[in-house]
Amino acid sequence: MKQDETMKVKRYDDTNVNPDFVAERKKCTFNIELLTNIIDGSSYLTETRRQAQLAVLNNESFSNLPDRYYASRDEAYAQNIRKSAAYIKLLKEDKSISRAESYFMQCLIFPNEVPPFSLHTTMFTPTFESMADEEQKKLWMPRIENYEILGTYIQTEMGHGTNVRGLETTATFDPSTDEFIIHSPTLTSIKWWPGGLGKTCNCAIVMASLITNGRNEGIHPFIVQLRDFETHEPLKGGLTIGDIGTKLGFHGMDNGFVKFDQFRIPRRNMLMKSAKVTRDGTYQKEKKLEKLKYGSMVFVRAMLVFNQAGQGLAQAVTIAARYSCVRRQSEYAPGQEEPHIIEYQAQQHILFTELAASYIFYIAGNKLRELYFTMNYDIQKGDLSDLPELHALSAGLKALTLDEAVVGIERCRLICGGHGYSAASGIPKIYTEVVAACTYEGVHPVLYLQTARYLLKVYQAALLSSSASSLPDNQSSKYIFRHLHSERPRFHFPLSFVEIVEAFERRALMCIEKASKKLDGLLATGRPHHEAWNYSACYLIRAAKAHSHVYLTSSVHEQLETVRQEDAGVYTVLGQLFELYALKSIVDHAVEFIESCGITTDQINICIERIEALLLNIRPNVLPLVDAFDFPDRLLGSALGCYDGNVYQRLYEYALNSPLNKSTVNVAYFVYYIAINIS
Amino acid sequence: MKQDETMKVKRYDDTNVNPDFVAERKKCTFNIELLTNIIDGSSYLTETRRQAQLAVLNNESFSNLPDRYYASRDEAYAQNIRKSAAYIKLLKEDKSISRAESYFMQCLIFPNEVPPFSLHTTMFTPTFESMADEEQKKLWMPRIENYEILGTYIQTEMGHGTNVRGLETTATFDPSTDEFIIHSPTLTSIKWWPGGLGKTCNCAIVMASLITNGRNEGIHPFIVQLRDFETHEPLKGGLTIGDIGTKLGFHGMDNGFVKFDQFRIPRRNMLMKSAKVTRDGTYQKEKKLEKLKYGSMVFVRAMLVFNQAGQGLAQAVTIAARYSCVRRQSEYAPGQEEPHIIEYQAQQHILFTELAASYIFYIAGNKLRELYFTMNYDIQKGDLSDLPELHALSAGLKALTLDEAVVGIERCRLICGGHGYSAASGIPKIYTEVVAACTYEGVHPVLYLQTARYLLKVYQAALLSSSASSLPDNQSSKYIFRHLHSERPRFHFPLSFVEIVEAFERRALMCIEKASKKLDGLLATGRPHHEAWNYSACYLIRAAKAHSHVYLTSSVHEQLETVRQEDAGVYTVLGQLFELYALKSIVDHAVEFIESCGITTDQINICIERIEALLLNIRPNVLPLVDAFDFPDRLLGSALGCYDGNVYQRLYEYALNSPLNKSTVNVAYFVYYIAINIS
Ligand SMILES: Cc1cc2nc3c(=O)[nH]c(=O)nc-3n(C[C@H](O)[C@H](O)[C@H](O)COP(=O)(O)OP(=O)(O)OC[C@H]3O[C@@H](n4cnc5c(N)ncnc54)[C@H](O)[C@@H]3O)c2cc1C
Ligand SMILES: Cc1cc2nc3c(=O)[nH]c(=O)nc-3n(C[C@H](O)[C@H](O)[C@H](O)COP(=O)(O)OP(=O)(O)OC[C@H]3O[C@@H](n4cnc5c(N)ncnc54)[C@H](O)[C@@H]3O)c2cc1C
Repeated sequence: MKQDETMKVKRYDDTNVNPDFVAERKKCTFNIELLTNIIDGSSYLTETRRQAQLAVLNNESFSNLPDRYYASRDEAYAQNIRKSAAYIKLLKEDKSISRAESYFMQCLIFPNEVPPFSLHTTMFTPTFESMADEEQKKLWMPRIENYEILGTYIQTEMGHGTNVRGLETTATFDPSTDEFIIHSPTLTSIKWWPGGLGKTCNCAIVMASLITNGRNEGIHPFIVQLRDFETHEPLKGGLTIGDIGTKLGFHGMDNGFVKFDQFRIPRRNMLMKSAKVTRDGTYQKEKKLEKLKYGSMVFVRAMLVFNQAGQGLAQAVTIAARYSCVRRQSEYAPGQEEPHIIEYQAQQHILFTELAASYIFYIAGNKLRELYFTMNYDIQKGDLSDLPELHALSAGLKALTLDEAVVGIERCRLICGGHGYSAASGIPKIYTEVVAACTYEGVHPVLYLQTARYLLKVYQAALLSSSASSLPDNQSSKYIFRHLHSERPRFHFPLSFVEIVEAFERRALMCIEKASKKLDGLLATGRPHHEAWNYSACYLIRAAKAHSHVYLTSSVHEQLETVRQEDAGVYTVLGQLFELYALKSIVDHAVEFIESCGITTDQINICIERIEALLLNIRPNVLPLVDAFDFPDRLLGSALGCYDGNVYQRLYEYALNSPLNKSTVNVAYFVYYIAINIS
Repeated sequence: MKQDETMKVKRYDDTNVNPDFVAERKKCTFNIELLTNIIDGSSYLTETRRQAQLAVLNNESFSNLPDRYYASRDEAYAQNIRKSAAYIKLLKEDKSISRAESYFMQCLIFPNEVPPFSLHTTMFTPTFESMADEEQKKLWMPRIENYEILGTYIQTEMGHGTNVRGLETTATFDPSTDEFIIHSPTLTSIKWWPGGLGKTCNCAIVMASLITNGRNEGIHPFIVQLRDFETHEPLKGGLTIGDIGTKLGFHGMDNGFVKFDQFRIPRRNMLMKSAKVTRDGTYQKEKKLEKLKYGSMVFVRAMLVFNQAGQGLAQAVTIAARYSCVRRQSEYAPGQEEPHIIEYQAQQHILFTELAASYIFYIAGNKLRELYFTMNYDIQKGDLSDLPELHALSAGLKALTLDEAVVGIERCRLICGGHGYSAASGIPKIYTEVVAACTYEGVHPVLYLQTARYLLKVYQAALLSSSASSLPDNQSSKYIFRHLHSERPRFHFPLSFVEIVEAFERRALMCIEKASKKLDGLLATGRPHHEAWNYSACYLIRAAKAHSHVYLTSSVHEQLETVRQEDAGVYTVLGQLFELYALKSIVDHAVEFIESCGITTDQINICIERIEALLLNIRPNVLPLVDAFDFPDRLLGSALGCYDGNVYQRLYEYALNSPLNKSTVNVAYFVYYIAINIS
């Protein structure tokens, strides 16, 4: 990124900080900057992020006016488009902006939003690049990279999401004109949901059933121009395009629909890297490239652990923690000033367990991203052996961390009391955006079942093998081999970190065993496989969750081992968070641990007491621990969660800006007044 | 209510019902109407409700145009005001409308909303009636009943909610003018949150610290005129009034703020039933009336169990269940048509457990309401002995049922996949409104702790007594006495209904014992009481939750015993739902049951298997079970959850109405287009 003198303003203004915060921050026992580097991945990445964020903060084109919480849908969309134009212009002008920099910039320009053009970069371009042949790339890529073409990814239909094979849209080859005819034969086949489709994008990759010579060859990708490049009007010839309407969140995003009515595209708009249709309608495909389709989905899921579950929860925790250090409420010690609500154990129990979870998701998300890049390196070289592992791991982790994160975000909001319900708290926005990720890129019951399917395979293999050696070291399911043939240890309480990891592994193995037994039992009664599978679903899902917990604990434990070498202070606090998250999970699923680890209810009670001790340990560092996330105020968008702790001034300013306050008397009132007084 | 010929239209249109629904409904094994009567309380109430709902559906003034999900905040507010005027006009014109009828009407006129005037009826009028003296009532009531005065209830300040004693607003008596001076001395003392305060109400009851003769006499209620009765302008002389801004939900409600700057009101605007200030500034109070203040709060909380937790969850379940019987997805049996998603065990596990919970909250909520009326009868006669019990019970139940309901509502939304995220599903609206009730009328950690305080008192009394006889029969905490001195039985699996109730009681007793021990242990180390109490909070909260579960199971069990006499079919299905809810709760808190009931992990596994069997039992009745809630389509406001099951047509219509679809090209796009192409 080009450096600019004006960018050297301070990120945080230390004057005018709430004195309660000054006092809190003095209690810190560790090096915050070091922890920030760990979260970011390195000190270099911390610096990169800060520079990118400063560039955004210093650029007026990226301001959020009107206030994002007051914008109507129309305004929210228009605002996003305005910022998108400025952002894309910047990317075009400054070719030195790196991928990491643009990622950091985009997060802050569109705080807790997925902007309308985002599918162009996350799905449209990567899919095009991996599915188009060289000639097609040469033809299209310049205009794609240039944003003249702005594309979205169109797969889901009104009637089909999970089951891609069930998609009804057809692309029928017409040899007489050398064209495909794209068609939506039914109401349910209308394409539905794609981001940016409603109003923004002029092109798309459309997934449709390829029909040639009367044969249905299955789902294939096509690049389709939807709107005129000059007028932006939808093209004539059989397109109905629109926005699908208001949603829980995503207000500034035009998720859209398109109905194809015998709409024609050239034959060469089929992406032809792994399959093609020749001029005479002959269908040909290259089998070995088939599996590569998974690639981008696995990548996006791996990212969600980090940037939705981890970052979303961390933001909510930051807000709730800061507010809890400002807010005073309730009589505590007789005759004394009301304490900050952070002093209540009930508050700590919720806040600190969510703080711990956010660190776990963040760090495990980082590890998963690294794992992806390592494995993807091999995959791209044609070695697909790691793909099932990566697929199963990212599916389960996406589901588990998001499931836990969204509940956590709402818990953080609720412990802010009334002001948490105000949009000004910032948490409602975080919630409505993050919870969307529980649905896109795969609904959770389905993802858990996919993970479970893989686990059962590994388990079968482990039953047949006598050692763990047949699995490569980086496989998260290696413990299945390891523990199947080894004796269960005696666990000592309080559990050591190593014992914690093993306890999670033993529990997961037991859940997998149980699922396998359940399935076998049903098969043994003569049920067909699909039925036996369905009626094992609850067991299978428990197994997938337990396995995902193993990755969370073991990968964070691994990180802890590295930190131990580096810094005692950071090791201590990170260790406390690790232990808190782990013990809370053990208590929440106590029966599974009792059964699998041979422990007792008394030992569970020790965990419960230990959790309370950890709350006390974490207490002095709570503000520094959220400061370490280093979220700019603009990102949080919260009156309750600002770095300076000046909560009440901001709440008041927020209220004064309410559109309903433009006049002292709302015109609507007169309708009422007249109606009531005439009678 | 006056009868009207035109009202006799059909509630449900049976023509054009989705054939899948017709088939589903044929599977029903019980008498739906009977179950509906149980939910409503009686067949008479069912009839009353239907008539009231028909009156709303037949009255065009109550239509929701613009579509409620597309309204901006301004429009949402204006729409509510328009409907409020029509509704209040109706109430004024037709004095035969009963309380029950007006309640049912209001629910349907403002589906899943709290309308701007609602505090007038729920808080302002009842508080005025119970706190004003006879002369004051004579003076004000005619205009209050006439809606000339439209009042709200102003207690919360920016800085204080839970701790009412911490309120900073002062009402200082000025004997020179015979007036009180209402004043907000600080930023945090600005009154904040009251419903209808921002734009709608012209009067309010304001809670403020009474100061006379230099002494602070504590918080008292004052009736304050805020706006001119003719022009509706805020009164001159020291008022700043406004809306507090956009929130997570409650868009059509003007929660407001008011800052008092030495604002003067006549002395006689202090409500003087239980305390007064004489002309010379002497303060006098009647001690025995003090506790009555609690009354309306207890009532509102008791109602929330029924109309927010029960009804809110039931609506979400209705939508998810109907959609699950329409939606087909995923390959199941090879070569066969995709099944309805209701056939997946994973789907059933979530949907049916939430269905069960909604029935439990509904029925227990009904019982609680009855209990309130019985006990309130004594209370009004001056016998306050039941008040602590009622207070503790309603606090814990409000918290527990809402905690469980809001998680359940989101689970129902998530199992609808992508369309659940659309506002058209109706569930986002249900969620954002119901979850507000987790905050108003008391935040949950605080409510649980209040319940726990009462439980410990009962426990202490039970320790000292040798029998249960000292507690009246209607006391929900009677089991503490009963079980403390009796031997624990052997439980048999699967548990009978009677055993289930006892298991919950045993578990609650153990949690109370543990909390008591924890507290005593900390006190024994010499900690001051407030500290010991704080560091027992986690134990205390567990005890309060466990106690609330006892009421849920025992009151529904009681209802079941009645139903058993009446109808075998209804008894069977209601019994299945009861068992499912209970077993799910046992499994979720297994360790507590293992410890308290002396059961084993194997027996927990039996419960897990039994849950799966119950899913199969409930399956054929799922549509009839949600039909029995008898929610009009208008109330649900859901494309996915309509009675006729025509999901896709409605989704498409919804999309076509999106304001973003008014033009084919959004003007915002040109900003983008120009910016990008100029560079
Ligand atoms: C905010 C948002 C953005 C989106 N963006 C895009 C986009 O850009 N492009 C695009 O193409 N799509 C997009 N989508 C669509 C998204 O990919 C789908 O919603 C998602 O894949 C789920 O599919 P579905 O909605 O059809 O649900 P379904 O597949 O119909 O599933 C509904 C429910 O049925 C149950 N179920 C289904 N199958 C099974 C099974 N085999 N076993 C057990 N239970 C099952 C599950 O509970 C599931 O939740 C978006 C969606 C959202 C919410
Ligand atoms: C939609 C809505 C409508 C409302 N309508 C009205 C109205 O009409 N009139 C009106 O006067 N008010 C109204 N309110 C305000 C409402 O009554 C308060 O928000 C509520 O009482 C909580 O108070 P608080 O917000 O000040 O939270 P606080 O009391 O500050 O509590 C914040 C958090 O601190 C923690 N905490 C506080 N005390 C303790 C303790 N002793 N032990 C443990 N933890 C503790 C809890 O986690 C709590 O969530 C409304 C609020 C909402 C959200």
